[in-house]
Amino acid sequence: MEFMDGVVKERSTPWDELLGGEITGQEAVIEGAVHSIRNMGDVAFVIIRRREGLFQTVFENEKTNLSIHELKEAMCVRVTGVVHEEPRAPHGRELRIRQVEILSAPAAPLPLPIDKWKLNTSLEAKLNFRPVSLRNVHERAKFRIQEALVRAFRDYLYAQGFTEIHTPKVGARGAEGGANMFRLSYFHRPAVLAQSPQFYKQMMVGVFDRVFETGPVFRAEKHNTKRHLNEYTSLDFEMGYIEGFQDVMEMETGYLKYAMELLEKEYGRELEILKLQLPRIDRIPAVRFDMAKEMVSRKYNRKIRNPFDLEPEEESLIGRYFKEEYDSDFVFVTHYPSKKRPFYAMDDPEDARFTLSFDLLFRGLEITTGGQRIHEYEMLVKKLEARGMEAEGMEQYLDTFKHGMPPHGGLGIGLERLTMQLLQEENVREACLFPRDMNRLEP
Amino acid sequence: MEFMDGVVKERSTPWDELLGGEITGQEAVIEGAVHSIRNMGDVAFVIIRRREGLFQTVFENEKTNLSIHELKEAMCVRVTGVVHEEPRAPHGRELRIRQVEILSAPAAPLPLPIDKWKLNTSLEAKLNFRPVSLRNVHERAKFRIQEALVRAFRDYLYAQGFTEIHTPKVGARGAEGGANMFRLSYFHRPAVLAQSPQFYKQMMVGVFDRVFETGPVFRAEKHNTKRHLNEYTSLDFEMGYIEGFQDVMEMETGYLKYAMELLEKEYGRELEILKLQLPRIDRIPAVRFDMAKEMVSRKYNRKIRNPFDLEPEEESLIGRYFKEEYDSDFVFVTHYPSKKRPFYAMDDPEDARFTLSFDLLFRGLEITTGGQRIHEYEMLVKKLEARGMEAEGMEQYLDTFKHGMPPHGGLGIGLERLTMQLLQEENVREACLFPRDMNRLEP
Repeated sequence: MEFMDGVVKERSTPWDELLGGEITGQEAVIEGAVHSIRNMGDVAFVIIRRREGLFQTVFENEKTNLSIHELKEAMCVRVTGVVHEEPRAPHGRELRIRQVEILSAPAAPLPLPIDKWKLNTSLEAKLNFRPVSLRNVHERAKFRIQEALVRAFRDYLYAQGFTEIHTPKVGARGAEGGANMFRLSYFHRPAVLAQSPQFYKQMMVGVFDRVFETGPVFRAEKHNTKRHLNEYTSLDFEMGYIEGFQDVMEMETGYLKYAMELLEKEYGRELEILKLQLPRIDRIPAVRFDMAKEMVSRKYNRKIRNPFDLEPEEESLIGRYFKEEYDSDFVFVTHYPSKKRPFYAMDDPEDARFTLSFDLLFRGLEITTGGQRIHEYEMLVKKLEARGMEAEGMEQYLDTFKHGMPPHGGLGIGLERLTMQLLQEENVREACLFPRDMNRLEP
Repeated sequence: MEFMDGVVKERSTPWDELLGGEITGQEAVIEGAVHSIRNMGDVAFVIIRRREGLFQTVFENEKTNLSIHELKEAMCVRVTGVVHEEPRAPHGRELRIRQVEILSAPAAPLPLPIDKWKLNTSLEAKLNFRPVSLRNVHERAKFRIQEALVRAFRDYLYAQGFTEIHTPKVGARGAEGGANMFRLSYFHRPAVLAQSPQFYKQMMVGVFDRVFETGPVFRAEKHNTKRHLNEYTSLDFEMGYIEGFQDVMEMETGYLKYAMELLEKEYGRELEILKLQLPRIDRIPAVRFDMAKEMVSRKYNRKIRNPFDLEPEEESLIGRYFKEEYDSDFVFVTHYPSKKRPFYAMDDPEDARFTLSFDLLFRGLEITTGGQRIHEYEMLVKKLEARGMEAEGMEQYLDTFKHGMPPHGGLGIGLERLTMQLLQEENVREACLFPRDMNRLEP
C-alpha cells in the first residue's frame, strides 16, 4: 500500500535560493522550458523559462552529456549544473551546465518569436496563437497582475465579513432583461446565460448580510469595440444595512487601496517586468452625473447633446478633468438617470429622474457600476409595472422582498477592464486570456 | 466635492465586542433581522440575526420608543440598548432595548419556520423557498463551510506557486466530447458550454507551469440522482514538471490537510452550529483500481461483474474497507481503465489497458478525478485517431503540444460533492445554493 502524506517533492532548486542563496560553487537543478539559445561556438547561452522568470545557463561543449545541437528552443528540460557569480547575467548569476535531461521535445518550430522582450505582433496573431504568445514573459506578467486584482478583492472582502457565494450561470431569466442574452435549451426548456449574479447576490443579502462572487458573466451585445467582451469575469459584491450608496463606494475604495498594496508587496517581479507605475489612491472624488457633464462642457468647450446620457468621449473627458484638477486616476460619477439604470435601482427620493447609483471611471473608462437597490416589495413591483415589465421568471426574486430585506447596495467590477486600465492597454482583449467577442469563439 | 477615503463606517457594535468586550452596562447597537419574537407579556425576547449569529435582546414594554406589537418577525431593525450579563442567554449576555429603528418591514409572513434550530422541511420545499430557507442558521452555516473549502484551495495553491486563471465557459467544442454538452447559438455559430476547463488549463501549463481555476462547469447529463448536478463548481488545477501522477495526489492531500486547518482556525462558529467533526487527515492510502475491486470482493463477498468498471456500490464499499482497515475517510483509487478515461489521459506504459490516473473517494463517493496527461504531440494524435475522434475544434489545443509541453497532470474536484461528504448530507443539492438539475432551473 502506498500512502500520500501531502508533501510535494520539489526537484528544482527554489528560485529565491537560486537568485540569492549562498550557493555559489554549488550544484543546482532547474526544470523549465528552453526559452532561447544563443550559440557562440564554444559556449552557448541557454535561457531557461520557469514560472518565476528567466534564468541564464551556460552550455560548454564537451562538458555536458549531450551536444548543443541536440538542444532546441521550446524543449522542456531538467538541467543540473554549478552556480557561478556573473555580473553580466540578468540576475548576477548563471548556471554552468553539467547535465541536461530532455523531458519533452517540440514537434514544430514556434510560430511567434516569444523570446523577444516585448512581443511586437498584431493582437490578432497573439490571440490566434494564445497558448504560445502567452509564453512571452511580458505577456504572461499581465495575468499575474490580474491574479492579484481578484485575490485582493476576495481577501479584502473576507476581512470585511463578506461570504463568498457561487450562483448559477444558467437560469430561466436574466437579471437585466432585454435582448442581449445568450439563449439555450435546457432539457427542452428555454434558458439563458447569466448577464450578472444580480438577483442571486441580492437574495443572499437576506441570508449573509454581505456577499461576493467572482465569476463569469455573459452578454450577447453586438458591440465589437475595444472595450467590450461577450464573456467576462465580474467581481460582484452586495452589502446590507447600508446608510446610502456611499457605503458601497467606500468599500470599493478600500478594495482598490488594498489591491495596490498587495501588488506592491507580492507582485514586484511582474511590476518590474511591465515597468508598471501603480496609481496612488488616497481618496477618490465623487461627482454628480449632471455636474460632471457641466464641468467637462465648460472646461473643454464641448456642447452637451443629451443631458441623460454619457458618451464615451465625455467619460474620457471626465477622467481627464479629475486627473488635471485633482490628480486622481479614479472618479465616482453618481446619480445616474433612472432611465439608464435597471428597474431594481433605487430612485433618488429628492428627484426620481435620477438614481442613488454610481459608476467608477478609471482613467476615463467605466470599470464599475453600482448603487443602492430597492429593498421594499411594493416599491419594486411598482417600478416593474411602470416599466411595463413582466414578473414572469422573477417570482422567487420578488418574493424575497416580501419576507424582509435590509437596505442594501452593491456593485460589479469588470475584471478585464480594470486590468486593461491598470496596464494602460488599448484593447480589453489584451487583458483576457481567451477573449470571446462577436467573431472569436476560439481558442 | 465629496471624497471617498475607503473607510467603511460600522454602525453596529462589533460582534466580538458584543460577546466578549468589557461593555456590560454600556450602550450597544445591533443591526439585523428579527429572527424570532417570544412575547411573555411584560417582556419579550427578540432574537436578532446577523451574519455572525443570533443575539438575544429584551424588549420591555414602556421602556422603548414603540410597542412590542409593532415589531414583526423578518423585519430589519437597528436596536440600541444596554448590554447585561445574563447566564441564561445563549452567549451569556443580552441587550435590553431602549430604542428600535425599523429599517424595513415584510409584506407577507414567512413560508417556512426558519427560526427552528434545524429546518425539518422537505428538500423540495427548502429549494423552492431557497432565499428564505437559507436564513435558517443551520442551513446557512453549510455554505460558510463551503466558502472555507474554496478559500483553502486557492490559498494553498497560491503558496505552492500556482497562478489563478479564468477561462471561457462558452466555446466551439467541449473537452470531454460526447453527448452531455449544453448547446447554444453564439452569434449564429454553434457553441457549447464548458464541461471542464481541461484544455485551457493544460495549455496554460506551458505558460505558468502551475495553474488553477475555481469556476462553474456544465454537464447535460441525464442523471437525476442524489450525486449529480448539471451545473457545479469545479476546483481545478494542473501542474507541470511532475515525475508522475503521485505528485498530483500529494498536492491534493496537502490541500485537504490545509482546508481542515483553515476550518479549525477560522470557522469554529459554523463547526459548532453544525456539530461537525472534521476528518483526521494524516496520510491518504492509494490503491490500484483492480486491487481495490479484489479487496472489496473478498472482504464483503461480492462478485466482480465488470473488471473495467466501478459501480457506485463498489465505490461505497471501497470507502468502507479503508475506513475499517486503515481508519481513513479518504482513499485514492489509481490506474483506471483506459476505456473509462478521456483521450488525453496518459496510458500506463506497463499496461496500456490502464491509465496513470486516479479518483479520490471521500466516504465512499468520488469527489475528484485526476491524473497524468499526455504531453507529446504524436502520442496525443495517435490516441485521438485510435478512438476515431475528430480533431475539429481542437486545433489550437493540439498545436500547443507541437510547441513543447512539460510532463504534467492535474485534477478537478467537485466542490458540492466535497461539501456534501464533509457535512455528511444525503443529497448533493443540500450543498449547493441554487442547484440546477434536470427539473430545476429556478430560483
